[in-house]
Amino acid sequence: MTDRANDNRAYAVLSERFSTASKLAAARAVLFWDSQTNMPAGGAWGRGEQMAAIDAVSSDLLAAPDALDLLEEANQALDALTPPEQANLVEMRRMARHQAAAPKALQVEKARQVAALQQDWLAAKQDNDFPRFARGFEKLLPVHREIAALKGEALGLSPYDALMDEVDPGLTTAAVEPIFSDLEAYLPALLAEVVERQAGWAAPIPFQGDFSPERQRLLSEVLLKAVGHTNVNCRIDSAPHPFALCGSPGDNRFTTRFDTHNIRFAIMATIHEAGHALYEAGLPRDLAFSPVGAARGATTHESQSLMAEMQAGRSREFFGWLAPQMQAAFGGPAEAWSASNVLNAYRRVGHGFIRVEADEISYPLHIILRFRLEKALLSGDLKVADLPGAWNELSQKLFGRRPPNDGVGCLQDIHWAMGLFGYFPNYALGATFAAQLFERATQDTPAIYEGLAQGDFAAYRDWVRPRIHERASQVSFASLVEDATGRPLSAEALKRHLRRRYLEEEAP
Amino acid sequence: MTDRANDNRAYAVLSERFSTASKLAAARAVLFWDSQTNMPAGGAWGRGEQMAAIDAVSSDLLAAPDALDLLEEANQALDALTPPEQANLVEMRRMARHQAAAPKALQVEKARQVAALQQDWLAAKQDNDFPRFARGFEKLLPVHREIAALKGEALGLSPYDALMDEVDPGLTTAAVEPIFSDLEAYLPALLAEVVERQAGWAAPIPFQGDFSPERQRLLSEVLLKAVGHTNVNCRIDSAPHPFALCGSPGDNRFTTRFDTHNIRFAIMATIHEAGHALYEAGLPRDLAFSPVGAARGATTHESQSLMAEMQAGRSREFFGWLAPQMQAAFGGPAEAWSASNVLNAYRRVGHGFIRVEADEISYPLHIILRFRLEKALLSGDLKVADLPGAWNELSQKLFGRRPPNDGVGCLQDIHWAMGLFGYFPNYALGATFAAQLFERATQDTPAIYEGLAQGDFAAYRDWVRPRIHERASQVSFASLVEDATGRPLSAEALKRHLRRRYLEEEAP
Repeated sequence: MTDRANDNRAYAVLSERFSTASKLAAARAVLFWDSQTNMPAGGAWGRGEQMAAIDAVSSDLLAAPDALDLLEEANQALDALTPPEQANLVEMRRMARHQAAAPKALQVEKARQVAALQQDWLAAKQDNDFPRFARGFEKLLPVHREIAALKGEALGLSPYDALMDEVDPGLTTAAVEPIFSDLEAYLPALLAEVVERQAGWAAPIPFQGDFSPERQRLLSEVLLKAVGHTNVNCRIDSAPHPFALCGSPGDNRFTTRFDTHNIRFAIMATIHEAGHALYEAGLPRDLAFSPVGAARGATTHESQSLMAEMQAGRSREFFGWLAPQMQAAFGGPAEAWSASNVLNAYRRVGHGFIRVEADEISYPLHIILRFRLEKALLSGDLKVADLPGAWNELSQKLFGRRPPNDGVGCLQDIHWAMGLFGYFPNYALGATFAAQLFERATQDTPAIYEGLAQGDFAAYRDWVRPRIHERASQVSFASLVEDATGRPLSAEALKRHLRRRYLEEEAP
Repeated sequence: MTDRANDNRAYAVLSERFSTASKLAAARAVLFWDSQTNMPAGGAWGRGEQMAAIDAVSSDLLAAPDALDLLEEANQALDALTPPEQANLVEMRRMARHQAAAPKALQVEKARQVAALQQDWLAAKQDNDFPRFARGFEKLLPVHREIAALKGEALGLSPYDALMDEVDPGLTTAAVEPIFSDLEAYLPALLAEVVERQAGWAAPIPFQGDFSPERQRLLSEVLLKAVGHTNVNCRIDSAPHPFALCGSPGDNRFTTRFDTHNIRFAIMATIHEAGHALYEAGLPRDLAFSPVGAARGATTHESQSLMAEMQAGRSREFFGWLAPQMQAAFGGPAEAWSASNVLNAYRRVGHGFIRVEADEISYPLHIILRFRLEKALLSGDLKVADLPGAWNELSQKLFGRRPPNDGVGCLQDIHWAMGLFGYFPNYALGATFAAQLFERATQDTPAIYEGLAQGDFAAYRDWVRPRIHERASQVSFASLVEDATGRPLSAEALKRHLRRRYLEEEAP
């Protein structure tokens, strides 16, 4: 706390509470990490209780009865605060409003519904049994709708935008819609054109070698260091789903998954999560454990992972360095490990129905499909029973084909079963922001490409750190974008990038 | 909560708060475990902040302004509570009094002093530089003395006993003193007699083989299962100091350390920690996350680790099973892995100055030395500057020799630098209780020895679970001892055990 904050008692009280809540959130993230990596199976019930206890005390801190009064009072003495403190107050107000908007009983009810729905969703997905999922989902939706409406009222936003604001402050349907409309109009034709072009390519030579988890781990350690981490701030562990630990200053560990049937997975997941971790590592230490010192939001976070994975990590230059690293890690016949063969394997587009396996061009379309449907589900325009039909119809429109069953269709993602609405957009907006950032970064610093060709992200890091990481949540998302790239977020850079990479770059 | 608790509103409010605090304590224990096993070094500062935040919110829960009034109110309607709830109320009252006794500012000051002293202690120990430690210790002592005095007042105990009560409810100087006096009178002569007897033995054949951490880990896994754990409730990790995770139902993991120069260490540390973990695993699930559902105290916990390690794990019967397990794990010349050679190596007594390396006979003397000195330090009867002299003099009296320097003398343990006073006694009282329990267990169930000869702790577990583990904190320490063994805690069983094992058993 600065001396100035001493002249604003309400701010001092609030920032202390939110600091404690930030530390508890970080502790909770470590507990989650542990549950995915180390915890004996028997610990599941107790761990759930521990995490729920942290949630309860955090919620009591953020939505204390005097919180809204204190926020008002703190706002009366803004002059007593430094600019970062003022920005912190904005973030605290937003978080407190979210916490206070929905009564605890409603949140508990949602948590209860969600816990039950997880099991049904898993079974329904495995058995292509949509009605099994639908029964619980039909009960969850009204609860979720009520929470969204209450948050919307409290924040002056539409219900859907209120949910988006929770994870991605500053992003609204009005901001997202033009970008998604643009991509929705542009990408299907591009996809078809690229598929046609690639039909003329020779099939990639299959990778062969020792793909044991141990070998994959060694390569992931090399990648972790290439992106810019060390053993002092980072570690890699194996978990069912890759994710980065967030909110723990100085501890930027992440997970990946070593699939012996698909070595490409761990490589790209490692670079992806290393990008998330680089953002966390670059957040300013003097603002640690305060809302203003946290990452700007889900879209910005995803822009950092996708800048590393998609923009840098799938560049021709980086593949030139990566291919011999793969050969050194896995052994096997040399011809599969040529840079052009690796490129050929990674650049293939247009297959499958699964979002998490989608290529760079199809991916935003997967998100747009979900965005359209989840908005309609939340508003009530789309009935649960009509979801499979709507999904398949929109798939036909966007991809030119329908999934053969709901398991690889509308049941493929866990998000809705977790009560996550308004979260999907950041995946595609992150790709959009990543393209806009990388275009500008490589214009400002062409040496980034030379670095990538050597497996060296230093020039890349030097560009992105002051423009994104060190700013944390001190400015709005819109300002962050404009200050870093000179223009508001749009789909233009992503479109240029995809066209350049998939139509203009020479064939492998 | 039972129906009956609904008729006691104050109890219901309190038990909810203490349940949350228990869950937070378990979360904190996981964070500590992680800091010792996995955390990248850069995370130290942030982890400290996370743990301090948990401490702060826990303290607010336990020492809420209305806590003492609610305890009084709950006590007025005792009839509305079941016996376990009544016992829970007793534990809550004790914990709340401890929390409320010392003002927060004083505890923060102690934490600040302790944090600084850790560094000085480490340097002082390495350099045999007592004055370096003394400077900070002289500042810590008055703070600690004040806390102890306040707790003593609140609990109606002497200052030292109040500190002991924090970790070991029911144990006081009055209870401990006769046991320690007895051991202090008995053990030095026994030690001398055993040293003289062993002087006539052939030296043990040195162990040889592949002592890599990987091989040691495999043997530790075998031991974990022998004692009675599975991969569903337990895991072993490597950490600087062995310890068991406590308070997380269903997750009874522990750490050990694989010293390639001393394979005996990991083996016995594993059995020791597996004993602690067995206690945790046996606590009643329906009382999980409540004070009455926790382990009875430090002495009882230590009795469970020492029953497994010292009583069962160093029995001639168990060595008969362990020796071929060691051979299978490490390879190397067979003659070193005979049961009698393993016994010979483990049974040697009387060397060294270091508590954590001490044999079973010397160990209680190490504790008695510390007990005498820390009581005098706390009361002010012993000045910090006089500590090395007092330590060396008492060493001479108890062991017949003085440590060559303070690094292996009064600076060897971290406890005082951590502000832990009143904690040491449980190490020796645990050994005392373990001997009394094991004597009774093997009288009741001689088949325990047959099991140990097969590496099977089942009969051992069946005896101890209902008598110790499942009772948790539902009865006082004194009742626990008497109910399980038929008499109050005394040094007699330990004396008989040591005499039998070290003077009456045949030579290896």
